Amino acid sequence: MSTSAGSVGAVTPQALCFDEPLALQSGASIAGYTLMIETYGTLNSDKSNAVLICHALNASHHVAGYYADQPKNIGWWDNMVGPGKPVDTKRFFVIGINNLGSCFGSTGPMHPNPATGKPYGADFPVVTVEDWVNAQARVADRLGIRQFAAVMGGSLGGMQALAWSILYPDRLQHCVVIASTPKLSAQNIAFNDVARQAILTDPDFHGGDFYAHGVVPRRGLRVARMIGHITYLSDDDMAEKFGRDLKAGDYQFGYGVDFEIESYLRYQGDKFSDYFDANTYLLITKALDYFDPARHTGGDLAAALAHTQASFLLASFTTDWRFSPERSREIVQALISNRRTVSYAEIDAPHGHDAFLLDDARYLNLVAAYFNRIDAGLQGGTA
Amino acid sequence: MSTSAGSVGAVTPQALCFDEPLALQSGASIAGYTLMIETYGTLNSDKSNAVLICHALNASHHVAGYYADQPKNIGWWDNMVGPGKPVDTKRFFVIGINNLGSCFGSTGPMHPNPATGKPYGADFPVVTVEDWVNAQARVADRLGIRQFAAVMGGSLGGMQALAWSILYPDRLQHCVVIASTPKLSAQNIAFNDVARQAILTDPDFHGGDFYAHGVVPRRGLRVARMIGHITYLSDDDMAEKFGRDLKAGDYQFGYGVDFEIESYLRYQGDKFSDYFDANTYLLITKALDYFDPARHTGGDLAAALAHTQASFLLASFTTDWRFSPERSREIVQALISNRRTVSYAEIDAPHGHDAFLLDDARYLNLVAAYFNRIDAGLQGGTA
Repeated sequence: MSTSAGSVGAVTPQALCFDEPLALQSGASIAGYTLMIETYGTLNSDKSNAVLICHALNASHHVAGYYADQPKNIGWWDNMVGPGKPVDTKRFFVIGINNLGSCFGSTGPMHPNPATGKPYGADFPVVTVEDWVNAQARVADRLGIRQFAAVMGGSLGGMQALAWSILYPDRLQHCVVIASTPKLSAQNIAFNDVARQAILTDPDFHGGDFYAHGVVPRRGLRVARMIGHITYLSDDDMAEKFGRDLKAGDYQFGYGVDFEIESYLRYQGDKFSDYFDANTYLLITKALDYFDPARHTGGDLAAALAHTQASFLLASFTTDWRFSPERSREIVQALISNRRTVSYAEIDAPHGHDAFLLDDARYLNLVAAYFNRIDAGLQGGTA
Repeated sequence: MSTSAGSVGAVTPQALCFDEPLALQSGASIAGYTLMIETYGTLNSDKSNAVLICHALNASHHVAGYYADQPKNIGWWDNMVGPGKPVDTKRFFVIGINNLGSCFGSTGPMHPNPATGKPYGADFPVVTVEDWVNAQARVADRLGIRQFAAVMGGSLGGMQALAWSILYPDRLQHCVVIASTPKLSAQNIAFNDVARQAILTDPDFHGGDFYAHGVVPRRGLRVARMIGHITYLSDDDMAEKFGRDLKAGDYQFGYGVDFEIESYLRYQGDKFSDYFDANTYLLITKALDYFDPARHTGGDLAAALAHTQASFLLASFTTDWRFSPERSREIVQALISNRRTVSYAEIDAPHGHDAFLLDDARYLNLVAAYFNRIDAGLQGGTA
C-alpha cells in the first residue's frame, strides 16, 4: 500500500431506476426496481478501468468514504477502496451496488408491491446470486461499461464475483473471490436455517407483514445476528478477545450478563435489530443457501467453470471455519483444471471469516499487488 | 464386549427425599428436595462395586433399560450399561441420578417453591456442577456407599465426574471423563447464551412464570435445541448424512423446507420443545458455563487437581468440535503433572460430540476393558 492512502471523502449515493422487468431464477419476475449505487474515482475514456464491488449479507452500496451529513457512516470496505488503497480510486472507477431485496434503498421487501400497493413483505421474490448478477449487469449497461477490469467480493460477495465469471465470461478481465465457497455445507445451511427460524417464529414477524403492524421482529433478528456473529469469528479469536472474562468480576447466578462475550454478542444483536430488515435477512440467507454453480453440472465444479475467461485471485483465511480455506481450494482446483490463470493465497490470520473485512497487511498488500498488475495491464504493461 | 450383552430389562425409578437443606455455591440453599434415581445390578456386601453415572444436558436418571408401561422409553446410555455391556451390571451396581433443577422428576423450576407455594420458575436457584455433586454425595450416603468403584459421565456428565475427583477425592476409585472439557471456551459460552436468549425473549416465557400462563416457550426452546444440535454433530457427519440433499428435489423459493438438514433440525427442535423445561435449559447451560475448577487456582488446572486420588480414564473424539480432544488433553496433562494414573484415548470417530452416546466398537471396547480392570481390582487382582 502507498503511505499516502486516504479516504475517498464525502460520497453521494445515486438511485438508478429500471423499468424493464427482471426475470428471476425462481420463475417470478420483478416488474420495475431501483438500485442504489455509489461510485468512486473516474471512469476512463475507454471505460476499461471499472471495478465492481459486490457486498455480503449486511453491507450495501456504501463501500467507501462517508456521507457529508453522517461523517461516522464510513463505507464497509473503506480500508480496501480509496486513493492509494489496494483498490486505488486514483486508477480505478469503483462501483458499489446495493443488491435487489436488500434494505439500504434498493427495491426490497419493505417497498410497495405494485400488484397490491402494500409492502412486499415475505412475498418479495426469493432472489439468487445469479439474479443479483443479472441486475448488476444492467447497471453496467446503464453506465456504458462493457467489461469490468475486475469484479470483486468477499463471502457472499465472492459468490457474486464467481457467478459473474460464469454468466458473463467476457464482461470481466479479473475475478477476485475472497473468503468464499462454491456452495454452502450442510452445517452452513443449518446455521442459516436456525437464524431464519428465530425470525419466522417471532410473533412480531406477522408472516413478514410486520410493517403494517408497526413493529419489528427484534427478538428474532437479534438471535439471528448472534448466531451469525459466532460463525464470523474464530474460536481462537473469541478466546483471545473475551476468553472467560466476567463483566462484573464474579458469577452473578442469574440470567443477566456474566461473561464479556455475552455482553458483546447481545450488543451486536441489538444493534443489528435496529437497522436490518427481517425479510431481507431471510432472502439473503436463502441466496447463500441456493448458490451452487455446479448444481447443473452434476456437482462438477470444473465443468461449471469451463466457460470462464477471467483471470482469478482467490484468498482465504486459515481460521475461517465458516468458509474454510478448503472451500477456496476447491474453486482453485476447478479453475486450474480449466487452465485458467489463478493466484491463490491462504492468509494466516486469527480473525476467522471476518478477516476479509479487517486490516491485515499481508492481505491488503496481496490485493494491492494484484490490482497493480491489473492496472499495468490496462496501461499496456504485462498484466 | 461380551456377545451375550443384553438389556437390564424393565426398570423402576425411585424418588429419594432429602429434608436437610442443601447449601449452594451461589450462597442460596434449597430447603428440601427430591432426587429421582434408578439403579441396575446388585450392590455387593462391602458396597464396593457401585458406579455412578452422571448425565448431561437433556438426559436423566433413566440410564438403561425401559419402563414396563413405556417399552420404547429406553435409557440414554443403554448401549453402555447392562449385563455384558461395557459397564456390566452383572458385576457393578450402577446408579443414575436426575440432577437437581432438571425436569425428569427431581426437584426443579416447575415444582412449588416452599417460600411462595408457587412454581420456582426462573427463581429456582442457579445450581452448579459442584452443587450437583454435593447432592449426589447425599444419595451415596443414603445408599450406604462410602466409595464408588467409579464415577463416570460424558460431556457435562464428565464435568461432574471430574468435580467428584476434586470435591470427594477418597470417595471414588476411578473417574471416567468422556468428551468433556475443564471449562467452556468463549465460543461454547456464546452458543449457550444465544440459546438462552432465544428462550428468555420468547413472549411465552413470561419471565420464567409460563406455568401459571398455561403456555410453554416453544419457539425459544426449539431454536435453542437447533443451535445445540448443530454443535453436537460434526461438519463432516452432517455433510455425510444430509449434504445439500433437497426434501422435494428442487428449490422451493420460499421459507418452508428446502434442504433435508432443515427438516431434521426443525424436527429435533419440535420434539425437544415437547418435553424439555425452559427454566431447566437455562440453569443447566449456566452450570456448563460456570464449571471451571481452575478458577480458584489462578487458572492452574494441575493445582486444581492436586488433591485428587482416583485413577482416570479420559476419552475424546476426533471430530468433536464442541469439546475437542485438545480440551481432554488439557485435563490429561494436568493429571500427569500430578503423577495420577491416567488412561487416555482419542477415538477417530466421525460423529462429533454426540459420538459419546453412539455405538463405536473401539470406544465401547475401551470402556469395557477399563471396567474389566476395575472389576479385577475389586476381585483382588491388579487394577
